Amino acid sequence: MIQLLFGDRKAWPDYEAPLTRALSASGLGVAVGTEAAPETVDYIVTSPDGWITDFAPYCRAKAVFNLWAGVEEITGNSTLTQPLVRMVEPGLREGMVEWVTGHVLRHHLGLDRYIKRTVPHWDYAAPPLARNRTVGILGLGELGAASAQALAGLGFHVIGWSRTKKDISGVETHGGPTGLDAVLGASDIVVLLLPATPSTENTLDAPAFSRMRKGVVVLNPGRGTLIDDDALLGALETGQVAHATLDVFREEPLPPAHPFWAHPHVTITPHVASATRPGTASEAIAENIRRGESGQAFLGLVDRGAGY
Amino acid sequence: MIQLLFGDRKAWPDYEAPLTRALSASGLGVAVGTEAAPETVDYIVTSPDGWITDFAPYCRAKAVFNLWAGVEEITGNSTLTQPLVRMVEPGLREGMVEWVTGHVLRHHLGLDRYIKRTVPHWDYAAPPLARNRTVGILGLGELGAASAQALAGLGFHVIGWSRTKKDISGVETHGGPTGLDAVLGASDIVVLLLPATPSTENTLDAPAFSRMRKGVVVLNPGRGTLIDDDALLGALETGQVAHATLDVFREEPLPPAHPFWAHPHVTITPHVASATRPGTASEAIAENIRRGESGQAFLGLVDRGAGY
Repeated sequence: MIQLLFGDRKAWPDYEAPLTRALSASGLGVAVGTEAAPETVDYIVTSPDGWITDFAPYCRAKAVFNLWAGVEEITGNSTLTQPLVRMVEPGLREGMVEWVTGHVLRHHLGLDRYIKRTVPHWDYAAPPLARNRTVGILGLGELGAASAQALAGLGFHVIGWSRTKKDISGVETHGGPTGLDAVLGASDIVVLLLPATPSTENTLDAPAFSRMRKGVVVLNPGRGTLIDDDALLGALETGQVAHATLDVFREEPLPPAHPFWAHPHVTITPHVASATRPGTASEAIAENIRRGESGQAFLGLVDRGAGY
Repeated sequence: MIQLLFGDRKAWPDYEAPLTRALSASGLGVAVGTEAAPETVDYIVTSPDGWITDFAPYCRAKAVFNLWAGVEEITGNSTLTQPLVRMVEPGLREGMVEWVTGHVLRHHLGLDRYIKRTVPHWDYAAPPLARNRTVGILGLGELGAASAQALAGLGFHVIGWSRTKKDISGVETHGGPTGLDAVLGASDIVVLLLPATPSTENTLDAPAFSRMRKGVVVLNPGRGTLIDDDALLGALETGQVAHATLDVFREEPLPPAHPFWAHPHVTITPHVASATRPGTASEAIAENIRRGESGQAFLGLVDRGAGY
């Protein structure tokens, strides 16, 4: 039997049934539970809520599967020398595409005016078409690329940026520092989907905001560290940024005293943009065990040097 | 020279430049203006805001082009014996797809909670995925079919209904009265994109609302006559309908005293879901003149018997 150790007791009740089912369907002969002698373990599931902090005793483990897409809380663990795999599963991707598309359309169509209206007012004004609106996506991994393609499919002019330039059909892509300035300067709406690494911290700082179009809308469903909070508040103050919709924060839950909560031009969503779904995530774990057993590359293998 | 009479003086300032440009680019040799002796006119542009009410003197006109997609205000005109063509142009379709997608996602993601929030509250709850949400589209013409495909592309389970069943890739379609009941009974969100004809009046009446899922959301960017207003207010009262977002009304502008304005579960948009755009509409008119001159079928030819 292959031994899988599930290292998150809080998540286990949600995962026990779908994971058992997915492993059974795989026909690989995998035993799974929340306890196992370290030297018997072949694969480990972990998460920031999990209890495994020392990975050294798991000497024969072939991989550590993180339950979430973001791995910044685990990459600094020096005892983790096994291959680290972040979660890549369709539910996570679909949820993110839906959040990004919904919030882009909210600002594109100016929905707040209609949603908040309390007195009769027939203020006819057709919005511009999506083809006349430019959306810039920073970060073109699994989630950024899928969001970019969904928006392009709706007719938006989509431009994307990543550290190293990528090719995505229907999307104008840029790479490197010069490319970042080009995307920031041309976008009506900017979406942050970069990973949290030392080099992406404060990607949007005061100089970056100053290079953006006056009245830009910023959406951050990526990571809290991508934005310099004080610089954003300053840019909102001058109107350089018209609105920010934020799903992720440096401290979560966002503390009640944080000025974002009361700001009239900030919308807070409580880290709901995308969640790992036990059903599809269990299938992704089973597929990666199959790959490990047959010597194929893991889907979502983390590059420890790059940090994602 | 081919003579085109533009029969809407209010719209003419917006159309003069793009229409002149489109006709010139066509190379057909078309003269266009807001005045011409009736017996010299080859083609007519009209609209509900236009001044031509008697089409009989235009004895040699080969077609009447309506500036809008809806033709219910003109089909009853017995002097109009020329072929009647409704507007089919990409801007009209794109605007509608954007409105429908944006308002479906607003309800799907529960955006109001975040947009209206005024006090700090970290209420984590991930919405279901689009694949677990059923959207029913009534009316599968140009606009309904395009909206259905956009929603299916985002992962929604889309089911569609039209008087006579149609085939649309990625969409489960139904036709006839039995099919209508099936779509009404299975949808979490219902979108009305039927034409206004005597047979579509009050498509959503009290019996129809009673056949829908408890807590359904209704979107009407189609025509005001499709809904029995009193029946909708009754269904909102009992919670049978959770929310209605309405873009079109029996009387427009919607009178300030109408109960829809003050209703907490009704959102009014002032007939902005889709507007004919002069640039793309001018190209559609030029293309239809080219078709008329070469004996091809007009795009958007109205079936006078069916009324659309």
